[in-house]
Amino acid sequence: MKKTVKKNAFYAQSGGVSAVINASACGVIETAMKQSKYIGKVYAGRHGIIGALTEDLIDVSRESTATIRGLRHTPAGAFGSARFKLKGLEQNRAEYERLIEVFRAHEIGYFFYNGGNDSMDTALKVSQIGESLGYPITCVGVPKTVDNDLPHTDCCPGFGSVAKYVAVSTREAALDVASMARTSTKVFVFEVMGRHAGWIAAAGGLAGTRPNEAPHIILFPEIPFEQQKFLDKVKQSVADCGYCVIVVSEGAATADGKFLADAGTKDAFGHTQLGGVAPVVANMIREAHGYKYHWAVADYLQRSARHIASKVDSDQAYAVGKAAVELAVKGVNAVMPTIVRKASKPYKWVIGHVPLAEVANKEKKVPREYITEDGFGITAACRRYLQPLIAGEAYPPYKDGLPDYVQIKGVAVRKKVKSDFTI
Amino acid sequence: MKKTVKKNAFYAQSGGVSAVINASACGVIETAMKQSKYIGKVYAGRHGIIGALTEDLIDVSRESTATIRGLRHTPAGAFGSARFKLKGLEQNRAEYERLIEVFRAHEIGYFFYNGGNDSMDTALKVSQIGESLGYPITCVGVPKTVDNDLPHTDCCPGFGSVAKYVAVSTREAALDVASMARTSTKVFVFEVMGRHAGWIAAAGGLAGTRPNEAPHIILFPEIPFEQQKFLDKVKQSVADCGYCVIVVSEGAATADGKFLADAGTKDAFGHTQLGGVAPVVANMIREAHGYKYHWAVADYLQRSARHIASKVDSDQAYAVGKAAVELAVKGVNAVMPTIVRKASKPYKWVIGHVPLAEVANKEKKVPREYITEDGFGITAACRRYLQPLIAGEAYPPYKDGLPDYVQIKGVAVRKKVKSDFTI
Repeated sequence: MKKTVKKNAFYAQSGGVSAVINASACGVIETAMKQSKYIGKVYAGRHGIIGALTEDLIDVSRESTATIRGLRHTPAGAFGSARFKLKGLEQNRAEYERLIEVFRAHEIGYFFYNGGNDSMDTALKVSQIGESLGYPITCVGVPKTVDNDLPHTDCCPGFGSVAKYVAVSTREAALDVASMARTSTKVFVFEVMGRHAGWIAAAGGLAGTRPNEAPHIILFPEIPFEQQKFLDKVKQSVADCGYCVIVVSEGAATADGKFLADAGTKDAFGHTQLGGVAPVVANMIREAHGYKYHWAVADYLQRSARHIASKVDSDQAYAVGKAAVELAVKGVNAVMPTIVRKASKPYKWVIGHVPLAEVANKEKKVPREYITEDGFGITAACRRYLQPLIAGEAYPPYKDGLPDYVQIKGVAVRKKVKSDFTI
Repeated sequence: MKKTVKKNAFYAQSGGVSAVINASACGVIETAMKQSKYIGKVYAGRHGIIGALTEDLIDVSRESTATIRGLRHTPAGAFGSARFKLKGLEQNRAEYERLIEVFRAHEIGYFFYNGGNDSMDTALKVSQIGESLGYPITCVGVPKTVDNDLPHTDCCPGFGSVAKYVAVSTREAALDVASMARTSTKVFVFEVMGRHAGWIAAAGGLAGTRPNEAPHIILFPEIPFEQQKFLDKVKQSVADCGYCVIVVSEGAATADGKFLADAGTKDAFGHTQLGGVAPVVANMIREAHGYKYHWAVADYLQRSARHIASKVDSDQAYAVGKAAVELAVKGVNAVMPTIVRKASKPYKWVIGHVPLAEVANKEKKVPREYITEDGFGITAACRRYLQPLIAGEAYPPYKDGLPDYVQIKGVAVRKKVKSDFTI
């Protein structure tokens, strides 16, 4: 019988954060604390993998049970995240060796990396290098991305909540425009995230359920933008409904791959203005039709909107964190838990898992059959897919009219490695 | 003893809508229906006062009780609003005479006008012209404005909910930026409404309660913008906190009265881009400091966000609608119900009323003592004022993951006036 060697665990958040990534953290931490036969301390990287490289580890055991529990309803990355992609093994072996050095010094045997495609690639490499350096480490990815573009999982934790935010906001703003259209605003342009995949824009389509209900137009990154066709459709919507609501993905682009966001405005100094496809589209409409318009750019509001999180999404975020630990202590290495859909109506899901090698650096876009023939809407199949992901409300507690989000104390673990490491 | 003459009532929504203007409609309608001794039918103007001028009246009695009740949790203007200011009596007497003609034809003896400063002016004039044309009509204003700029009322229904939205969104986005600041975004700029008064921007200040908590800078229309002082403060915030969150009012302007929003970007055709102070401010920071930034423009999302409405605001919106009818049937003419604050902690309020003549065409700005000495934050006094207005959640019911907002049938009343009227 194999003797159980107790090891510490390391958890890190990576890339753009979400309304529920801390729910995954909560799932990892609460589950790890129950696995005291296998797991000793739980450490978290301060600002993600940078915390490991610089040996800036947070001692999670110093946080109260209430704080850990509160992570489940707190948006963004409580431990700090990082946009920091480790280079390839050949290009920068030193970074990987440093990771293993820190892990070895702190007797870390489990690495839970909470992120998107890039992070799954990193987790895989850490697992490989650990093996080759004689310090085997169990690496399990915890999926997170508002973009919903990870393959092999039915959906990605983080997406359902931004989808709910976008669908709710579109429905609400559309009522506003409908109220005003007789004498004022006739066109509303709502810019949402999704640089390469149009899942978030597609979610805007859930706002309307009957013919002619908003949004009247969705601009997907997957569908090359054709200006005249778009302008004709705007005119038609105003003629038919009195107004036109447009949800545009920040990644909307012409056939030659040029982002609309880069096509329009320049600042006072003549530099192309970064970001902001909504004003570009709105100006285009004004030039062509002269309609009064308004536009909104949700930006970070959409992915941090824990106040309107999807309960399904929040539950799934917790579940993948929990599953990651359960897989790890069973000795399953280099995998990522996935959401497996068993049925859409009523919605049933279970947790599965997939090798990291199959997830790393791949993107799942909105399939053509989820987009209507004219390229401006979502199909019934897309609605069936999206609908369950925004189901249920998971309201945070409130204090003085504001969500009572938790903050960690973030007590640092004493350093053990003698050398420093510069990022 | 005076004989009670039963008359019909007319209700109209005016100007920009809010998350709770329909709650006022609900208050007016439910209360009017209980006053059957005085009030016969309740009619609503389709698209506000335009519905009266064009004799396009909605028969509210054709809506179900459930729909009327549902207005209380439905944002925007269910009957349609209008940006249509009646001219002065001297300039366009025909419009006022037309109103009286339509009111007379439909035996309308009560006029409830739900709007801001301009609308109170209109309601006053209708009351005066009715008298002089021998068709006296009881005109009661129902206050509504997200800008919170009406005088003689402690606050304006509609404001508390947008304030809550802005405070919640600022808190959430700030957590996002804090997560990312180590390697990515260091500055976040959040543009909110308030062209002339900075109440909405001030509400962003509620997001943080401790020193150095976001927002680090608020830009008010009341405080002339000084670029170098602002840029220095941004730099200081990044140095002290690692990041900087800025809430900027769309009405932020320099000392010469020039809106920042008009100062910056031009579209591809060289036209000044309308709206969007956030990108202007963000570009300014990039030029000076080179920080990575993100920006958001909430626009209509903020004022239609019924999903995160303030319970106090929703209750007050209903209460002013109810009070308007109660005043009218008592024969109190040319007044507007007000919110009177009795205490801040615990918050206590009652309904008062004020003559329309004292409200019309006046604006209440954020007083200097509500803004910190450096002009970038809110004082404790401001916090005491704002805090109660965002208290409590008043969640709408949900269906399939989305708020279940009601839509009126909007059955038209048969026309009685022979002539048409062109707007």
